[in-house]
Amino acid sequence: MQLLETTFWSAGGSRHGMAEQLGFSKSKANALIAGLVDQGLLAEAGLQRSSGGRRAEHLQLNGTLGVLVGIDIGATSLDLAVLGPDLRPLAQCAEAADVLQGPGVVLARVRVLMRELLAQCGLDASKVMGIGIGVPGPVNFQIGQLVNPPLMPAWDGFSIREALREDYAAPVFVDNDVNLMALGELWRLKRTLSNFLVIKVGTGIGCGIVCHGEVYRGAAGSAGDVGHICVDQEGPRCHCGNVGCVEVMAAGPAIARMAVEAAEAGDSAMLAERLRTQGRLDALDVAHAGRAGDAAANAIIQRAGNLLGQMLASVVNFFNPSHVFIGGGITHIGPLFLAAVRQSVYQRSLALSTRHLEIQYTPLGAQAGLIGAGVLAMQETLKVKGIAP
Amino acid sequence: MQLLETTFWSAGGSRHGMAEQLGFSKSKANALIAGLVDQGLLAEAGLQRSSGGRRAEHLQLNGTLGVLVGIDIGATSLDLAVLGPDLRPLAQCAEAADVLQGPGVVLARVRVLMRELLAQCGLDASKVMGIGIGVPGPVNFQIGQLVNPPLMPAWDGFSIREALREDYAAPVFVDNDVNLMALGELWRLKRTLSNFLVIKVGTGIGCGIVCHGEVYRGAAGSAGDVGHICVDQEGPRCHCGNVGCVEVMAAGPAIARMAVEAAEAGDSAMLAERLRTQGRLDALDVAHAGRAGDAAANAIIQRAGNLLGQMLASVVNFFNPSHVFIGGGITHIGPLFLAAVRQSVYQRSLALSTRHLEIQYTPLGAQAGLIGAGVLAMQETLKVKGIAP
Repeated sequence: MQLLETTFWSAGGSRHGMAEQLGFSKSKANALIAGLVDQGLLAEAGLQRSSGGRRAEHLQLNGTLGVLVGIDIGATSLDLAVLGPDLRPLAQCAEAADVLQGPGVVLARVRVLMRELLAQCGLDASKVMGIGIGVPGPVNFQIGQLVNPPLMPAWDGFSIREALREDYAAPVFVDNDVNLMALGELWRLKRTLSNFLVIKVGTGIGCGIVCHGEVYRGAAGSAGDVGHICVDQEGPRCHCGNVGCVEVMAAGPAIARMAVEAAEAGDSAMLAERLRTQGRLDALDVAHAGRAGDAAANAIIQRAGNLLGQMLASVVNFFNPSHVFIGGGITHIGPLFLAAVRQSVYQRSLALSTRHLEIQYTPLGAQAGLIGAGVLAMQETLKVKGIAP
Repeated sequence: MQLLETTFWSAGGSRHGMAEQLGFSKSKANALIAGLVDQGLLAEAGLQRSSGGRRAEHLQLNGTLGVLVGIDIGATSLDLAVLGPDLRPLAQCAEAADVLQGPGVVLARVRVLMRELLAQCGLDASKVMGIGIGVPGPVNFQIGQLVNPPLMPAWDGFSIREALREDYAAPVFVDNDVNLMALGELWRLKRTLSNFLVIKVGTGIGCGIVCHGEVYRGAAGSAGDVGHICVDQEGPRCHCGNVGCVEVMAAGPAIARMAVEAAEAGDSAMLAERLRTQGRLDALDVAHAGRAGDAAANAIIQRAGNLLGQMLASVVNFFNPSHVFIGGGITHIGPLFLAAVRQSVYQRSLALSTRHLEIQYTPLGAQAGLIGAGVLAMQETLKVKGIAP
C-alpha cells in the first residue's frame, strides 16, 4: 500500500529510489514489488536511463487498475476528466453551469457527462476505481457534505456521494475546490515543497493550505476561508453581513462592478462601448481593455490586485509560506494583476517572511482542480481499499 | 528513543498504554522497557490504580538522567527554571531585565542565575542534559540565532549557543518565545489538540502555531509574526514602517499610551492621579483602574481587545484553529479584555470557523514559556543524543 502510494506520488520512479524513499532494503523492496506486479497493481515501464553500470526499471501504477474520475464544480462552470492511475487525462470536457440551480440539476448533468466521457474511452462504470469532486464551498470532509455554503445554499447538507452511488460502485470523495488545487500542485511538485498556499480568485476567493507537506483543512474543515478577511473597515457590505471583505472588493464580480462604474462615469470609452454592445461587463472585458492600453481598466486591475495583496500580506505574516500560487478565473487578467498583488504583499509583509517568497500563477493552470480531484480519488481509494485491486 | 519520547510526552503512563500508543506488542514493549530501565533511562514509578485484575506500572523518565534548564528571555523580563526530566520545577527565579542592553549583559546575568539555581538544587553544570531558551524575536531554529529581531537589534546573528558553551557541555536550543509557549501547551495537553494558536501580547504581539500536532515555524522560521497585520489603514505608524499594525495599536505600550492620553485629556481622574504619582502609566495601571470601575480605562481595554480580535478574526478565517490561547503580560488585565477579543472575533469570523472555537487565557499562564523551553530542551536533546544517557 505504502509502495503504491509512493509510486503514485513520485509519478513513476525507479525500484532503487522507491526503496530508498521508504527506507526498505533492496531485497525487501524487490520482493514487495514482485508481489505487486504479480497482483497486477504495479507495472515495470521500460528502462530508466542508466546512471551507472546497472539499469533500474521505472515503476508505475498498472493502467489496468482502472480509471479515476475528477470533477471540478465551479460556481459557474463544470469540468470533468477521466484520468489514468498516473493522472494522465484520457478524456475531458468543460462547460458553463450554475451551481445555484441546485444539486439535482447539476449532478444529473454530471452523471450524463461521466457516461459520455467513459464511453469515449470505451469503458463502463465498473472500470472506475475512484471519484474525486471539488465544490466551491466549505466541506465536511469526513462525510463529504457541504456545510453552509454561501455560494450554493441549496447544496447545504446534500449528499453528493449518495447521488452517484446509483451509477458507480467506486468510492466518492468530496472536498473544497481550492483544497484540491493545492493537492494537485502538491502532486505536481512530488511533495518537494512543504508549506505553500494556493489562492483561487473567481466568483469568490478561497485558499488551499499545505502545511508540513499535507493539505491542512482546519479544526472544522473551514481553513483557508480567506474571502471574508477585512481589507477596508469603510468598505462595501458583503453577503456575509460584514463590510470590506476582500471577496466583495476584489473578486470577479467586484472587478465587473468597478468596470461598469468606470464605463458609466465616462472614464473608459472602451469599457463603455463593450457595455453597450454586450449589455454587461466581466473581469475578462477589463483584461482585454487593459491589454489594449485602457488606463481605467488598468487602474481597476491594479486596485483589485492591491486589495488581494493586502489580505495576502496578513496571511503571509501569519503563515510564512515558501510559495503562493494564484489560480482561478483571475489568471486570465495576466501579469499586471500579479504585479499589483506582489507590490502590496512586499510592502505590507515583514522582510523575513518575503525574503524567499515566490508569488506566481498556478503552474497547473485551469487543470489544477481536476488533477487535484484525481489525486484525492487515488489517494483516498488506496487508503480505503488497502492493496486490493 | 521513541519510547523515551512517548514517555516524556505522555507525562508518565502505563506500560500497557505505551505499547498501545507505539503499536508494539506487549512482549516487545516489555523487553524494550526492561532494557531502558537497566540503562537507567526509565523508572517504574509505583503502581497505577488498578483498572481490572492486574496492575500496570507507571513509567517515567529516570530522575537521575539529569536536569533541564529553561530560560525565557522577554523584552523586559528574565525567567529561569531548573526542571526535572518530567518538567517538574526544581528551582526557579524571575527578575526584570532589558534585552536592549544586548546579549553580552543579558547572557552574563543568565549565566550567574543558572549557577545559582543549580547550586540551590545541589547540582553542578555536568548534571544539565539540555538547555532551552525562548527569545522575543524571529529565530533561525536550525542555527539557533535571531534574525533581524525588531525588539532586540543588538542580538542579530549573535550565537547564544556559543555564549553558553563555555560553562555547559549540554546542547542549547533557541526558539521564539511564543513558539515555546505553544510547545508548552502542547505538552500540557499531551498532544490531544492538533491545531491551535497561542497569542502572546506583551511589548509586542506574536503567535505560536500548532498544526497537525506539531509546532509550525514556517518556510523561513517567521510564521506567527502577526504583530504587523494591519487592522486600520488610517492607523498610527509602527516601527516596522507600515501604518495600523495591531502591535502599535493594541500591545502593552499602546495601552499605556492610550492611558496617558485619557489622563491628560481629563477623561479619567484615577489614571491622572496615578500618572501624577508615578510619572508614567502602564497596562497594569489601566487594569487596576478598570477593575475599580473607571469608564475610560474600561474603554481602553475594550478598544485594545477589539483590535486584537480584529486581527485574530483574519487568522481564524485562514487557519480555523480549535483553540486560541492568549498569554503574556496582557493576561493581568482580566476578563474584560478577553470578552472584547471574543466579541470581535465572533463578529468578524465565519460561523463555521467559530462554531467550536474556544478563546481563553493560556492555562499554563506565566509558566508557559518556561515549560515550553523545558520541552524544547528535552525533545531536541532526545533527538540529538539518541538513547545514550
